[in-house]
Amino acid sequence: MLAGRCRWCDGDAEVFLPYARLSLCRTHFKEYIVRRVRRTIEKYRMIKEGERVLVALSGGKDSLVLLHVLLAMKNSNDPKLSLNCDLEAVTLDLGIRGYSEKCVSVACAYCDEFNVPHYTVKLIELAGFTIDDMASQRRPACSVCGVVKRYVLNKVGVEMGFDRLAMGHNLDDEAAVLLSNYLSANVELLSRQHPVLPAREGMVSRIKPLFEVSESETSMYAQFQGLTPVDGKCPYAVTPSTHRFKRALNALEEEAPATKIKMVRGFIERVKPLLDNIETPPGKCAVCGYPSSSGICGFCRLKKAYGPM
Amino acid sequence: MLAGRCRWCDGDAEVFLPYARLSLCRTHFKEYIVRRVRRTIEKYRMIKEGERVLVALSGGKDSLVLLHVLLAMKNSNDPKLSLNCDLEAVTLDLGIRGYSEKCVSVACAYCDEFNVPHYTVKLIELAGFTIDDMASQRRPACSVCGVVKRYVLNKVGVEMGFDRLAMGHNLDDEAAVLLSNYLSANVELLSRQHPVLPAREGMVSRIKPLFEVSESETSMYAQFQGLTPVDGKCPYAVTPSTHRFKRALNALEEEAPATKIKMVRGFIERVKPLLDNIETPPGKCAVCGYPSSSGICGFCRLKKAYGPM
Repeated sequence: MLAGRCRWCDGDAEVFLPYARLSLCRTHFKEYIVRRVRRTIEKYRMIKEGERVLVALSGGKDSLVLLHVLLAMKNSNDPKLSLNCDLEAVTLDLGIRGYSEKCVSVACAYCDEFNVPHYTVKLIELAGFTIDDMASQRRPACSVCGVVKRYVLNKVGVEMGFDRLAMGHNLDDEAAVLLSNYLSANVELLSRQHPVLPAREGMVSRIKPLFEVSESETSMYAQFQGLTPVDGKCPYAVTPSTHRFKRALNALEEEAPATKIKMVRGFIERVKPLLDNIETPPGKCAVCGYPSSSGICGFCRLKKAYGPM
Repeated sequence: MLAGRCRWCDGDAEVFLPYARLSLCRTHFKEYIVRRVRRTIEKYRMIKEGERVLVALSGGKDSLVLLHVLLAMKNSNDPKLSLNCDLEAVTLDLGIRGYSEKCVSVACAYCDEFNVPHYTVKLIELAGFTIDDMASQRRPACSVCGVVKRYVLNKVGVEMGFDRLAMGHNLDDEAAVLLSNYLSANVELLSRQHPVLPAREGMVSRIKPLFEVSESETSMYAQFQGLTPVDGKCPYAVTPSTHRFKRALNALEEEAPATKIKMVRGFIERVKPLLDNIETPPGKCAVCGYPSSSGICGFCRLKKAYGPM
């Protein structure tokens, strides 16, 4: 479908958003995304006045967009957009040769350019191993990486006293995980699925400000803002299991625009409240003291098996 | 994939069932379906010893298969298959010219052949209108038809004192409705979705013995048993809204066999119990006294508007 005229300024539209039946020019599309994320933050009370927010900056598209949108709010004079908070960013150097260096370098350059305090945490220093080491030991890199990222980002957030850890997950990510959890009827995972997880002992509050913004919208935003995410992909990348759920949802969205956003919002508003008494707060890891549902947490088990003696 | 040898007799297999990694010859496929439905009935306590079961026989493939499978159990000497119950059938003549006659005729011939007591209920006599009348008044035929079928089949079941009303819905139907309810987060409809609805005042217990048998399995069973469902389709048939959900699920099933059955079973076992306190029993229709969630039930409203003065 041709985009036609921009709804907001009558200029040439470059974008048509079927779920909102909205045509926008480049300038107003960028503004629209910032407004939408601002409303998401407001609606779900993701960030309160003056809070310290740590953005998980992988160097990938979504994390760059997330930081860019949050900065736009921070620097805005428009009272409807303006967000008074402290923004910093963290990048985890996973030690994947030929890839992690590029990720760190993109993240550093970006934070330099936008004057954002930035920390790089090296997995080798924290754990005594890298993802390359894991892969060479035939451990599945992606699942190890998941455990490590969750653990380290949370630890940094807690130890540096941040109020929020902001993740770049978009609508397509959230909807695919939700569909997967529905199909497997995994009520425990369903009970933990929410764009705002509150802080508790040993856990920083985790927020997903882009969860109402689709994959294609973050792509366009990145392109229109001239953001240059890391070039190339992780050498261990395999087609993630969520890929087929994304494809199924794309087909449904094509036929009935707004399927994904209605699915995710409907879950939060009507289904999630019914699951709130399922969740059992995890115990503590016997080694590091951070939350863990088993006696020793996944990170410490990896460290014990593969870290320095 | 070629079917290879039959797992049960080493003869030529004609069927391969990916979700069970099972190749079967024609004879053993037919037996397999009867066994599976028998287990479904046992597991969900759908029919108890000696109960009176009324089969909703539309003349379509699924309803013929349902009655055939139940008869196979009733007539079986195998203690694992045998099901001691009273089987009768009902067909609703919707008054769709050129189509309803064929449906009724298929159902009558079938019940004659298998010696099953059979009732035909004419919508015109019960309601004073036909589906043709509705369509000529520009009422959406499919939604009227849904209201009318649910009402009349239940009424017949209750008034004739049956213990169960057996419907021909298959796995694909159940899974598509479940996906639709998940995507719209309709917790009320979710709370009512179950292959066994218990009896309550004014409601006969409604069961779906084929809900674990896929669409393609009912098709093959019908073909292998030489069942001849009604030829042609309803002139008012439009692509049902569940069609796109069926397509999405077929794509997912193709990539991961057993997706549908796991989805539906997982819902019943783990999600449904969490929704049990949502359901509010409906009140009574002020006109007919049958259960209704609004003051006057949908059937009586139709009858008042379109029935005889």
